[in-house]
Amino acid sequence: MSTKKKNRDWRATIHEVIYGTHTPAGKLFDIVLLIVILYSIIIVMLESIPSFDNQYHRFFNISEWVVTILFTIEYILRLISIKQPRKYIFSFFGIIDLLSTVPKYLTFFILQSQFLTAFRALRLLRVFRILKLVRFVGESNKLASALKASKTKIFVFVFFVLIVSVLLGTIMYLVEGPTHGFTSIPHSIYWTIVTLTTVGYGDISPQTPLGQFIATLIMIIGYGVIAVPTGIVSAEYAAYSKNQKDSDQGRSCPNCGAEIHRSDAEYCRKCGYKLIEE
Amino acid sequence: MSTKKKNRDWRATIHEVIYGTHTPAGKLFDIVLLIVILYSIIIVMLESIPSFDNQYHRFFNISEWVVTILFTIEYILRLISIKQPRKYIFSFFGIIDLLSTVPKYLTFFILQSQFLTAFRALRLLRVFRILKLVRFVGESNKLASALKASKTKIFVFVFFVLIVSVLLGTIMYLVEGPTHGFTSIPHSIYWTIVTLTTVGYGDISPQTPLGQFIATLIMIIGYGVIAVPTGIVSAEYAAYSKNQKDSDQGRSCPNCGAEIHRSDAEYCRKCGYKLIEE
Amino acid sequence: MSTKKKNRDWRATIHEVIYGTHTPAGKLFDIVLLIVILYSIIIVMLESIPSFDNQYHRFFNISEWVVTILFTIEYILRLISIKQPRKYIFSFFGIIDLLSTVPKYLTFFILQSQFLTAFRALRLLRVFRILKLVRFVGESNKLASALKASKTKIFVFVFFVLIVSVLLGTIMYLVEGPTHGFTSIPHSIYWTIVTLTTVGYGDISPQTPLGQFIATLIMIIGYGVIAVPTGIVSAEYAAYSKNQKDSDQGRSCPNCGAEIHRSDAEYCRKCGYKLIEE
Amino acid sequence: MSTKKKNRDWRATIHEVIYGTHTPAGKLFDIVLLIVILYSIIIVMLESIPSFDNQYHRFFNISEWVVTILFTIEYILRLISIKQPRKYIFSFFGIIDLLSTVPKYLTFFILQSQFLTAFRALRLLRVFRILKLVRFVGESNKLASALKASKTKIFVFVFFVLIVSVLLGTIMYLVEGPTHGFTSIPHSIYWTIVTLTTVGYGDISPQTPLGQFIATLIMIIGYGVIAVPTGIVSAEYAAYSKNQKDSDQGRSCPNCGAEIHRSDAEYCRKCGYKLIEE
Repeated sequence: MSTKKKNRDWRATIHEVIYGTHTPAGKLFDIVLLIVILYSIIIVMLESIPSFDNQYHRFFNISEWVVTILFTIEYILRLISIKQPRKYIFSFFGIIDLLSTVPKYLTFFILQSQFLTAFRALRLLRVFRILKLVRFVGESNKLASALKASKTKIFVFVFFVLIVSVLLGTIMYLVEGPTHGFTSIPHSIYWTIVTLTTVGYGDISPQTPLGQFIATLIMIIGYGVIAVPTGIVSAEYAAYSKNQKDSDQGRSCPNCGAEIHRSDAEYCRKCGYKLIEE
Repeated sequence: MSTKKKNRDWRATIHEVIYGTHTPAGKLFDIVLLIVILYSIIIVMLESIPSFDNQYHRFFNISEWVVTILFTIEYILRLISIKQPRKYIFSFFGIIDLLSTVPKYLTFFILQSQFLTAFRALRLLRVFRILKLVRFVGESNKLASALKASKTKIFVFVFFVLIVSVLLGTIMYLVEGPTHGFTSIPHSIYWTIVTLTTVGYGDISPQTPLGQFIATLIMIIGYGVIAVPTGIVSAEYAAYSKNQKDSDQGRSCPNCGAEIHRSDAEYCRKCGYKLIEE
Repeated sequence: MSTKKKNRDWRATIHEVIYGTHTPAGKLFDIVLLIVILYSIIIVMLESIPSFDNQYHRFFNISEWVVTILFTIEYILRLISIKQPRKYIFSFFGIIDLLSTVPKYLTFFILQSQFLTAFRALRLLRVFRILKLVRFVGESNKLASALKASKTKIFVFVFFVLIVSVLLGTIMYLVEGPTHGFTSIPHSIYWTIVTLTTVGYGDISPQTPLGQFIATLIMIIGYGVIAVPTGIVSAEYAAYSKNQKDSDQGRSCPNCGAEIHRSDAEYCRKCGYKLIEE
Repeated sequence: MSTKKKNRDWRATIHEVIYGTHTPAGKLFDIVLLIVILYSIIIVMLESIPSFDNQYHRFFNISEWVVTILFTIEYILRLISIKQPRKYIFSFFGIIDLLSTVPKYLTFFILQSQFLTAFRALRLLRVFRILKLVRFVGESNKLASALKASKTKIFVFVFFVLIVSVLLGTIMYLVEGPTHGFTSIPHSIYWTIVTLTTVGYGDISPQTPLGQFIATLIMIIGYGVIAVPTGIVSAEYAAYSKNQKDSDQGRSCPNCGAEIHRSDAEYCRKCGYKLIEE
């Protein structure tokens, strides 16, 4: 029984270090994890540059193994220290954690370099872990709330933009035709979205006067319409900020019930009742 | 008389299925219609890709006939079940519904492929039907209201942008001239709008130092001016949201039923009834 | 004395037609003027297209003479009917009106086609007259007020953007150098503004990894910073709209002095005093 | 003692002229400084244009020496007239002021033209001095406050955009590959940011249908997401403006002097003093 308890304590300590953020050890773990993730991302990036890969291939390979082993140890510790390992395994972060360790071990079995690159890139999904660590920065919650509140509206808007793009893309396909680069309706829709979102690569551009006139209309539509999601987020965010402020400051007078609008009020503005006891 | 009544019932049932959205049959009809429209749009798109059309021409042709016949049946049912068929025929959706069936039948008479593509694309107009189905999503109404409220303002703004574009386009035509790609004033205006809306294809770009200086001014104007429609929509949307919230949270007078808009109201603003008991 | 009075009446009538907008004749004059201006603008535009000019040169020449003579008559009538002709001559619109008639008469003396095009384009300045006619659309006043209120702020902002562009442009010139298209510091600043305002022609683009990294930073700065003028206009416009609404609805109770927030209020919400006499 | 006092007076006068802005001499000094800085910036710019440099090399060299000597005198005067010279030397503007004089003197020792251009450009840092002079325009303070308030939120947002760019860039690298211009993951991330911020150079653009589809998604994300920083700044700015207006219009308590923030307050919120006589 004593060993069992000891075992539990040992697990609890690991749990506190890995999942906790308030103890010094927990904070240190988070910072080390952040550095290892960033390091692994930089390695994946640099490896993709041919000149770097040729020169430092050995170093990259060793780095990858070190990172993979560190991630594997972390994954095992997470599994051991948690009460319901199954829940973790099938959670969003559980799958990402697994996917960021498995690919390197697969290099023993698969030798085609094409597949390896794709698998290696899976480790990049770990950037979401960083986001999770950043979550503790209060501001991001506020941002997330504002985005969540305007989610459906932005979805409706994007859907509308897509329908307009399908129509305008088809018209441009009929006007310009395959000889001017508008080779098919999907390709033409691609061009319409490139124009409507004001990206404007210039790989395809209208050649006929009529096509250029329609393009001008599309741009002006895009110009006027970009205002819509901005207006939505802006209004939602303002409303959210105001609500929070109101609920922070909202006290009411115990004598007459009038709202107290200023946090530094000492007397009720309605009945003159003393709010703060001395 | 009995058959006449039966006939009426039969029509009423169809009407409920096609126009209604609250019965299970009505919902099912809407979902099936949505799928058929999306399917027909995808077919039109894929057909326009030469490599796809060569390989699956037969399949596309059959698909088109199936979709056309389904749309024809729907059109006839709509005509039968409605009380004033003439009103439907000349309504916006009536014309679209007709235009999305007719083209395929015309292939018997017209054999020029150029015309066929254009006609076939008419079926894409049916995407508006999807919009009509989406209408029931509450958020889109809110969006539509905000847009409607800022419509005239955005129109005035777009008109102003056009006048500025005409002036700046002419100046650029005089500065750069046909040798640097600014072949005519309309073409130069096209370039100005491409720049002002920050699309920037790069198919034409100023070559002279003076032209580049003016282009820089145009960009900064565009940068500062894009704020205007955004600001309008943002303010209108915020005002609209606030009004709705106010009326949601409102109390109503127990005497005359008028909404009470101010939380600190003590008397009804409509009948003078005392709202707060002392 | 009778002839003098008659003369005055005759002038007053012309004045009413030209400057007035409330009489049917005044409205008709404005509409005709609008059409003639638009027609003259379209002629200037089409003339600049070589293929059109070759074919319809004679027609364009006659059209120009007709428009010029109409504008000259209008100019003389304005001079006659106004009390202080000197004030009109040196006013903004007076100069534009003169500049839109003079160029065509100059074709008798100057025969170089290069100069002619530039002079002819002066007639485009008349589009401002259209703006003046549109002024009566109430919305544009509201827009103009919002823009005027945020003028200084946007100026400060644009000034800051320019300074940042000078610095970043110089850095890019040092990093990329003339071999990659950044031929001089002014040209490099031009590129920076093209990037910062998200126009992105692509006529010059960074080639070195360091240059691309700095370009990425510039883009993200531009992305975050475009928010500033939008935010300003949005807030100013909202404040302006609100103020107007407040002043429209702002009545106060003659009994207790409480503000009346609803235009349809019949009783004071504070003391129950009857606001509207029957 | 008398000379010491005289010396002090002499220093105080210089201090007033250089650091002060309210005396005519102080204003004149600021304006002269502004002109010299702008002149030196224009010289650095024009010098970088090869054709200008060849023709006016001698003039540019003399101009640079004049500006450098003027800046050196200013630097020495600032050192003499201030009480704590060490504090000034190591301040932000102290370092910039030094860096804008040193490079020209270094031309005696270093003769490589490559280094000279880079050093010469250091003088451009003096544009910040202009900003400091502009500081007195009240509006820029308001802007700066709005930006400072939304700083952390925009940082969180930019951080999120970067993570999304890393993921999407990697996906595009895997989809398009080096054959279509996506030569490495960092290069692919560069492309993603170019697209997401709607800059769209077009130096690299997706060639495969799948790549174009993903590009379309990135653009629409960028389109919807650009709303976020705008919304934040807009809301913050509006809140800031409102707070300022409220405090501007506020009454103050005749008893304790505290501001009265609510127009319908009857008692002071600080001392309970009755504000409204009955």
